[in-house]
Amino acid sequence: MAKTKRIITILLRLLALGATLSATVVMVTSHDSREVLNIKFTAKYNNSPSFKFYVIAEAIASGYGLVALFLSWKSSVDRLIVIMDVPIAMLLTSSTSAALAVAEIGKKGNSHAGWLPICDQVPKFCDHVTGSLIAGFSAAIVYLVLNLYSLLVVLAPLFPVKP
Amino acid sequence: MAKTKRIITILLRLLALGATLSATVVMVTSHDSREVLNIKFTAKYNNSPSFKFYVIAEAIASGYGLVALFLSWKSSVDRLIVIMDVPIAMLLTSSTSAALAVAEIGKKGNSHAGWLPICDQVPKFCDHVTGSLIAGFSAAIVYLVLNLYSLLVVLAPLFPVKP
Repeated sequence: MAKTKRIITILLRLLALGATLSATVVMVTSHDSREVLNIKFTAKYNNSPSFKFYVIAEAIASGYGLVALFLSWKSSVDRLIVIMDVPIAMLLTSSTSAALAVAEIGKKGNSHAGWLPICDQVPKFCDHVTGSLIAGFSAAIVYLVLNLYSLLVVLAPLFPVKP
Repeated sequence: MAKTKRIITILLRLLALGATLSATVVMVTSHDSREVLNIKFTAKYNNSPSFKFYVIAEAIASGYGLVALFLSWKSSVDRLIVIMDVPIAMLLTSSTSAALAVAEIGKKGNSHAGWLPICDQVPKFCDHVTGSLIAGFSAAIVYLVLNLYSLLVVLAPLFPVKP
């Protein structure tokens, strides 16, 4: 039972690590440029504070994921990792949502505010951002599952079991 | 000990409920308009999908907060509430971050994308959004504390206590 629990947790952590790593790499390598009236217009992730926050958060989660994966072999720090998973899940949720909100404006614009969509101009950039956000969103969901699973496992002995 | 724990949890829940309720009300009542070249330009929360998501999320969290507060008197559903707190915390974090990302563009614009700031045009709207986001952000932090506190309380009997 304890072994099954450990294997499930390690698989979830591997999945989350793969997702956060690819989200970071795909976002960092995203850039596209276009010349309009001799002025070069380059789209990069660091043009937006939300995208910068996203890259930093995904990188932190990747680093944490790697450390947590190694440490999860030692049961002495198990509980510390279960607790640390909560802020990491919130960090991922926060950064992915912020980046998604900006990407939505990039894709569709906002006619009320007079913001034009930019994806027609820099399609390669938008494709990268979309790919990265899918990975980032998956990572946030895996961490939600991980948190709920930890809680259920921790709470399980406290639930009354019917004979 | 169990009583102290219950009082702390109820105080945190009351704080979160107040924050989500005021975040919802302040955001819903935010609107400002300005006439430019005889065209009336109105800023409302439902002009942006991120702000709409924010209002829905804060309203859901308010409803949940009210129900959780009443149910937390009955210890039979204690564990269900502890588990439900996790997705609610993530919902609040997600919606606040998305709204914050859009508000940041509204405040400062994004010169790379050619998006102009709009807060000079509709200052009353921006003030309301700022106020609402402060309340929403506080609610997300209270839920993070609530989650960590529940985990610590649940894990406490499992920690080895040194004599």
